[in-house]
Amino acid sequence: MSDQPASSNNNKEKKSKPAKQQQQGSSSGLKQNEGIDVKKQENFSEWYSQVITKSEFLDYYDVSGCYIFRPNCWFVWESVQKFFDAEIKKLGVQNVMFPLFVTKRALETEKDHVEGFSPEVAWVTKSGNSDLQEPIALRPTSETIMYPSYAKWIQSHRDLPLKLNQWTNVVRWEFKHAVPFIRSREFYWQEGHSAFKSKEEADEEVFTILELYKRVYEELLAVPVIKGTKTENEKFAGADYTTTVETFIATNGRAVQGGTSHHLGQNFSKMFKIQFEAENKETQFAYQNSWGLSTRTLGVMIMVHGDDKGMVLPPRVAFCQVVVIPLIFKDKDNATLVEKTKEIYNELEKAGIRVKLDDRLERTPGWKYNYWELRGVPLRIEVGPKDLEKQQIMFCRRDTGEKWTMPLSEFSGDSIKAVLDKIHDSMLNKARKEMNERIVVTRTWPEFIKALNSGNMCLIPWHESKAAEEYIKEKSKLESVQSQSDANTGLTGAAKSLCVPLDQSSFPSLEGLENFYPEEAHKKPNCWALFGRSY
Amino acid sequence: MSDQPASSNNNKEKKSKPAKQQQQGSSSGLKQNEGIDVKKQENFSEWYSQVITKSEFLDYYDVSGCYIFRPNCWFVWESVQKFFDAEIKKLGVQNVMFPLFVTKRALETEKDHVEGFSPEVAWVTKSGNSDLQEPIALRPTSETIMYPSYAKWIQSHRDLPLKLNQWTNVVRWEFKHAVPFIRSREFYWQEGHSAFKSKEEADEEVFTILELYKRVYEELLAVPVIKGTKTENEKFAGADYTTTVETFIATNGRAVQGGTSHHLGQNFSKMFKIQFEAENKETQFAYQNSWGLSTRTLGVMIMVHGDDKGMVLPPRVAFCQVVVIPLIFKDKDNATLVEKTKEIYNELEKAGIRVKLDDRLERTPGWKYNYWELRGVPLRIEVGPKDLEKQQIMFCRRDTGEKWTMPLSEFSGDSIKAVLDKIHDSMLNKARKEMNERIVVTRTWPEFIKALNSGNMCLIPWHESKAAEEYIKEKSKLESVQSQSDANTGLTGAAKSLCVPLDQSSFPSLEGLENFYPEEAHKKPNCWALFGRSY
Repeated sequence: MSDQPASSNNNKEKKSKPAKQQQQGSSSGLKQNEGIDVKKQENFSEWYSQVITKSEFLDYYDVSGCYIFRPNCWFVWESVQKFFDAEIKKLGVQNVMFPLFVTKRALETEKDHVEGFSPEVAWVTKSGNSDLQEPIALRPTSETIMYPSYAKWIQSHRDLPLKLNQWTNVVRWEFKHAVPFIRSREFYWQEGHSAFKSKEEADEEVFTILELYKRVYEELLAVPVIKGTKTENEKFAGADYTTTVETFIATNGRAVQGGTSHHLGQNFSKMFKIQFEAENKETQFAYQNSWGLSTRTLGVMIMVHGDDKGMVLPPRVAFCQVVVIPLIFKDKDNATLVEKTKEIYNELEKAGIRVKLDDRLERTPGWKYNYWELRGVPLRIEVGPKDLEKQQIMFCRRDTGEKWTMPLSEFSGDSIKAVLDKIHDSMLNKARKEMNERIVVTRTWPEFIKALNSGNMCLIPWHESKAAEEYIKEKSKLESVQSQSDANTGLTGAAKSLCVPLDQSSFPSLEGLENFYPEEAHKKPNCWALFGRSY
Repeated sequence: MSDQPASSNNNKEKKSKPAKQQQQGSSSGLKQNEGIDVKKQENFSEWYSQVITKSEFLDYYDVSGCYIFRPNCWFVWESVQKFFDAEIKKLGVQNVMFPLFVTKRALETEKDHVEGFSPEVAWVTKSGNSDLQEPIALRPTSETIMYPSYAKWIQSHRDLPLKLNQWTNVVRWEFKHAVPFIRSREFYWQEGHSAFKSKEEADEEVFTILELYKRVYEELLAVPVIKGTKTENEKFAGADYTTTVETFIATNGRAVQGGTSHHLGQNFSKMFKIQFEAENKETQFAYQNSWGLSTRTLGVMIMVHGDDKGMVLPPRVAFCQVVVIPLIFKDKDNATLVEKTKEIYNELEKAGIRVKLDDRLERTPGWKYNYWELRGVPLRIEVGPKDLEKQQIMFCRRDTGEKWTMPLSEFSGDSIKAVLDKIHDSMLNKARKEMNERIVVTRTWPEFIKALNSGNMCLIPWHESKAAEEYIKEKSKLESVQSQSDANTGLTGAAKSLCVPLDQSSFPSLEGLENFYPEEAHKKPNCWALFGRSY
């Protein structure tokens, strides 16, 4: 960001519009190319806010906790939708659309469920100037909206399995500090809701979907995940059990719950009377699952990959995968250069690569490099007169900054696709390495709190216990406040259980280890659980 | 519907669930195959309600005016989305997502606009048990949500055109009688919002989009439309002018506004200060358009094509295009038959045709015919032992009931695609003929009211006038009540202007004709306007 004055334009949550920038801009009339003026490691939350806004990914809005998803950002979500929608359709899932609204009566049908959600439910009470007869809630999730219909539609074992999904907005009027993408009052997601004859079939689907969530993160967003099961305290309100893909933000040592797939058992089917006549003529209650993946995915992607220059987009979800920039010199004849650049552009476009040609005359190459780096475009191709003399073109990777040349004879759509795949793999591997280095096995409380306050996730010897979880939460909160870590690093607040990882095969023996919770020292730990700070 | 007792199960707007049907069903445990027990011509609204629910397209919901879009129904909307989204992306439109919520202040920025929408705006006033600081509205449309951002993002002529679109739900808390798909409190649509340097560019887009709306209706839904301009009374609140594709329900003689594309002029850009520095350095206000197509499309499709047997789906949006039914006889060896049927199924699936094989043993072929006819599947293939002996298969078209055989030697994916295209064309042509026969040129009031009360749309000599429109509305209302038409036919209520058709070339000369509105008899009519009853 050397050739542009960087200026902060962080108007988060403000209602006023920023001043018009015409006067500040160059004579070309283009807006200023503002760079990121804070380091990711030094002030993470300010960095995040700058990256998402200056890259034109997101904009703030005058209703607190609500955000505007701009085109480059919505493109990522559309890419996730396209992949996931095709995969669930292969599983026989059908898309539907249920209303946004839910009555108080339906919302309160499942007791645990309503307790989990009621504090953050938004209520419509008026239309025009008239009061509604009874307040109507906006969906925080759709179990209570959909399941009365399931009870109608499901009569026989032949009506099962029923597997439905919808892509919707949901509203949770949270009062915690909002973080764009990660915690907001309205967000976008898919919610799948299925009903089965048997627990076995339902269990199988839970993990099939969890694997798809993992694939979204790893194959599209280049973000590694840890698959696991939530502890009792952290499971979905109304579920028998909740599985999760947990993600990790290395910069502040915080985990983010990346997507959850729940087995609801017969909890809802009993409350909503979702029953069917089985093959043996007996009436049985259905076994149900629900599963959701949200636009939170985008926040994780940005936090994991972004750097001090701005956004870093994984190639498979990037609105633009390659930008081609001709190095035009004013005092030279650029005809050959321009022609060659267009050939390169056309070749890539023909190959189905999302490519842009930045041949604006009023901007310098350096300015353009910054412009596209800020926006996260994975690969830049520079075409200069000297390179052309040598029959080569120059590449620059966004993720590593690495530059190299390629002979024009080797250039093709396929060769560039291979480069993009390599970038993807490299981003995923780097993030996985960063995450794995920060998963620390801790066997005692002092080891735990030390590792935690160094920004790690901690594996601890575990035996399911709500009391133990509360104990760890309280104690870690106290001790984090005592250890004066800079608030900007995010290393404050309570640790909670993130998950019990499904794959425990690489973890050490539990032989001879004790629970952290002294009052349950007699209970032998039977697995390792991952604890840490989280969003 | 001969082999099943038909029973009415019309639980519209009721809050109670219908009784469980296990006891009534056959021993197979399948739900009853309920047919439509009322004629489209005799009781249209009851017919409509039965068709949409018994075909499993839609279900009623316990919040009045809100509906459940079931898989076969949502599939149609997804087909519309897929087509339209690809087309607008070709035009350089980008998808975004703005919040559902809008503050009172923003909502009220454009005076005409807020007057048009405020009576039906739903307000959130509480979250959990707490009152919000100020009520927040749910979007009835997003002009006032999006345009404050346009003012920020648009600074220079280089930032234009800006063309954004979103696929969302919107809420209009109407108190008029709700009609599923056609008028509901929540519906789904796309809304495009664009800003241009010049009125000319904006004008061009208005009509480009209108043409796409026409193509959605004609090329996907097999529904003919009339393109036109809305009169002053009927234009969008805040627009300079509104263009429309008008559709027509022959059964009750009612028009339905099928989709609208508005030119907003500088009305919103002046209110929201959407201005840019032009090439000549002057500051100018942008010219804007907005355009929307909603799930109303689905209601029109059903009303136009459905018949006394149920849904009739146009092939290009049908969840299932072809159903293959083997005529299995219990006392025979069906091995060859079953094998051949599967071959046919596989061939069609391989060709990318949406095909189902109904080889359920517990149901008779006749039952299956009714089942798939009720659901609107365009083409049925019957495979029987006698046909196989003759090396042929039997076809039956849903739209006409026509049956014919095809030698197996001619059967292929391509031959079936040709049949499906023929069905599409035939459905469109039939509907167009029905519509065109009901567009009547009327030159005097008595001619007009007579044609109107016979279920026609009427072309009348027109010179733009709000007073004339009010006059026609009032007078037609009075005279429709005097003429005692059966309420079930829908031939009651006021007529209003539907549009001024864009193409007037086939209409008669206006020479010597007078306005219907006596007080403006001196104003010479300058075009023909289409008036009629509408939804």
